[in-house]
Amino acid sequence: MHSTALVLPRRECKPRACGTTMMIDTGLPTRQFADVVASFAPLIDVVKFGWGTALVTDDIKYKIDALREHDVDYYFGGTLFEIFAAQDAVDDWRRYVDAFGCRTVEISNGTIPMSNTAKAEYVARFTPELRVYSEVGFKDPTQSEHLSPQQWVDYICEDLEAGAYKVITEARESGRSGICRADGTLRTDLIRKIARSGIDMTDLVFEAPTKDLQVAMIREFGANVNLGNVAVADIVGLETLRTGLRGDTLLDFTTPLAVAHA
Amino acid sequence: MHSTALVLPRRECKPRACGTTMMIDTGLPTRQFADVVASFAPLIDVVKFGWGTALVTDDIKYKIDALREHDVDYYFGGTLFEIFAAQDAVDDWRRYVDAFGCRTVEISNGTIPMSNTAKAEYVARFTPELRVYSEVGFKDPTQSEHLSPQQWVDYICEDLEAGAYKVITEARESGRSGICRADGTLRTDLIRKIARSGIDMTDLVFEAPTKDLQVAMIREFGANVNLGNVAVADIVGLETLRTGLRGDTLLDFTTPLAVAHA
Amino acid sequence: MHSTALVLPRRECKPRACGTTMMIDTGLPTRQFADVVASFAPLIDVVKFGWGTALVTDDIKYKIDALREHDVDYYFGGTLFEIFAAQDAVDDWRRYVDAFGCRTVEISNGTIPMSNTAKAEYVARFTPELRVYSEVGFKDPTQSEHLSPQQWVDYICEDLEAGAYKVITEARESGRSGICRADGTLRTDLIRKIARSGIDMTDLVFEAPTKDLQVAMIREFGANVNLGNVAVADIVGLETLRTGLRGDTLLDFTTPLAVAHA
Repeated sequence: MHSTALVLPRRECKPRACGTTMMIDTGLPTRQFADVVASFAPLIDVVKFGWGTALVTDDIKYKIDALREHDVDYYFGGTLFEIFAAQDAVDDWRRYVDAFGCRTVEISNGTIPMSNTAKAEYVARFTPELRVYSEVGFKDPTQSEHLSPQQWVDYICEDLEAGAYKVITEARESGRSGICRADGTLRTDLIRKIARSGIDMTDLVFEAPTKDLQVAMIREFGANVNLGNVAVADIVGLETLRTGLRGDTLLDFTTPLAVAHA
Repeated sequence: MHSTALVLPRRECKPRACGTTMMIDTGLPTRQFADVVASFAPLIDVVKFGWGTALVTDDIKYKIDALREHDVDYYFGGTLFEIFAAQDAVDDWRRYVDAFGCRTVEISNGTIPMSNTAKAEYVARFTPELRVYSEVGFKDPTQSEHLSPQQWVDYICEDLEAGAYKVITEARESGRSGICRADGTLRTDLIRKIARSGIDMTDLVFEAPTKDLQVAMIREFGANVNLGNVAVADIVGLETLRTGLRGDTLLDFTTPLAVAHA
Repeated sequence: MHSTALVLPRRECKPRACGTTMMIDTGLPTRQFADVVASFAPLIDVVKFGWGTALVTDDIKYKIDALREHDVDYYFGGTLFEIFAAQDAVDDWRRYVDAFGCRTVEISNGTIPMSNTAKAEYVARFTPELRVYSEVGFKDPTQSEHLSPQQWVDYICEDLEAGAYKVITEARESGRSGICRADGTLRTDLIRKIARSGIDMTDLVFEAPTKDLQVAMIREFGANVNLGNVAVADIVGLETLRTGLRGDTLLDFTTPLAVAHA
């Protein structure tokens, strides 16, 4: 960040436990991906290769080279785990992530029928060797709404006790399920219940794929909330929201002390 | 595609008659376009230069070079034909497409007043020398809704009899006209009527510019439906939808046989 | 533009006072930005670095190099001025814009509490040395709706009398405030009142971040209206709308004289 006389919210440098940004790659071309990583590495803590995108192109190794060069962590989205799990091929999944040198993975049950306990057992199985993000919440909005706030809390705690590095709360790439309603609005009561349950905010990553969700989360939890499913096009914009440099959060972080004639 | 133990829907390699993806270029910068083509050529059957975009920049020849190098076909969108036709300059249009070495063209009447018979006569005129995509449906949603399902079928058949290589069903870049309602939802009754009319599915290309439409089409007609107006940003995502590698179609193509504790 | 037999609306070449396009950079990676500028320079009159985006990355000087090489003007969005103003640091803002060799700036009061008179005084203070765009309208939709059409006109005139080069009418990046309603529709009555007030259209720039707004403005004021907050992805599309090369404006600029069988 440029040095100016401005007083802005404090941001930690990487590696950091809070204020992290997880960018989702939904299938960028190879050179554009490298351009994004080279331009924004200080703003990106980890890249998620969304669902099974890595399986349909041949360039994933070049993308990983770019990430390693700029010290950005990466993992394959939880849906990839679920596809292998649904075909009784979790050992193949493990070989797949090892082949790409992953130190981080995601384990979820957002689409396939799998109990939270079964998911937590997978977390426990892989957590000694890998940094495991787990996810709570379903991709189907009706199924997610049927999950009570207390169940959200219980599932998050079960995953953390199983050894999850952080737990991600589902919102999809569209912001229309999980912690969001089908119309895209945030279930504020739900995230407040989670936040007041005693779970350490450092252990949570909120999926926030739209600017409205990012603004809501930063207003609720401050500049240094962990946010996920951030689109490539929003990486710079999110950092300005965190630091009060965009209209939406300017007055949250800056009190106009000295504006003449106001 | 990477080799794994997963069982996924079968996809033909290019050149193929079904399961084709037509990508629309709405005006990418030159180097980004080349990056997209180099990264995703096996997933893209043909690129459409949207409406008159090619006329306002100077880089179309470089884009065509990139497409030829990677064996991806290309054509100018039907609106370009309509602009020339509206100015009584179809011969100039023919010279224009020849100047860019087009082997493929699109002939449509989505915007200008032109009967289907007149359009079919243009198809017949150019089809001996060029591969002609024709299009049925109007860009104006009200006009499209007034077209009865039987008229859709009749117009498609008239174009195919005139020699059209494939017929495209209009949905615009927004998915808000033609086979879609003004609110973006798919007119399922209409596309079922077309599919059950006896027209060979191989001869049809459905415009499906949004993820919701792509999911609906794949659920309706399977992994190997021909889809058009696919945005650059959706090329990889569409391929994962076709192969059950995204949450939306995962359970359509994979039966979870062996998920413990489910 | 390619030479064809087509009769299209006349466009001036740069530098021009009307028909200008202001592109907003919301945080492109460095090389993609250079690609955009190299590909589309004849279509872009000026680039606005949106709000405080320039402060959170280190590549702004490379972006400015690309702009200078291709003769495209640039400035920092008005929100940057407001952030400094809110912290009583306008002198620092002036040093910041000088450090990047800006000849153009934007002064606004869209977010912070500042009267139009105070804003106009800033315009007057900087206008001898800098080309000053000012902005009228608030980022908050309710606040904007409370501004009467006459107040819009009065504020625009006050800014022009203070020396503003052009006055921008607010619509945000979303097209959901200022001259637009919260649902994204254009306040046609408002812009007509402004246009009929006697203000020279050359002195106005209408923010038009969506295709629907661009179409509405071109239909209302013609091909050569000044438009702002145009997204990178819409630069080519906007030029085709201005010149009748897209379905939406084709029939506004071309009368189909000679379409057989119509």
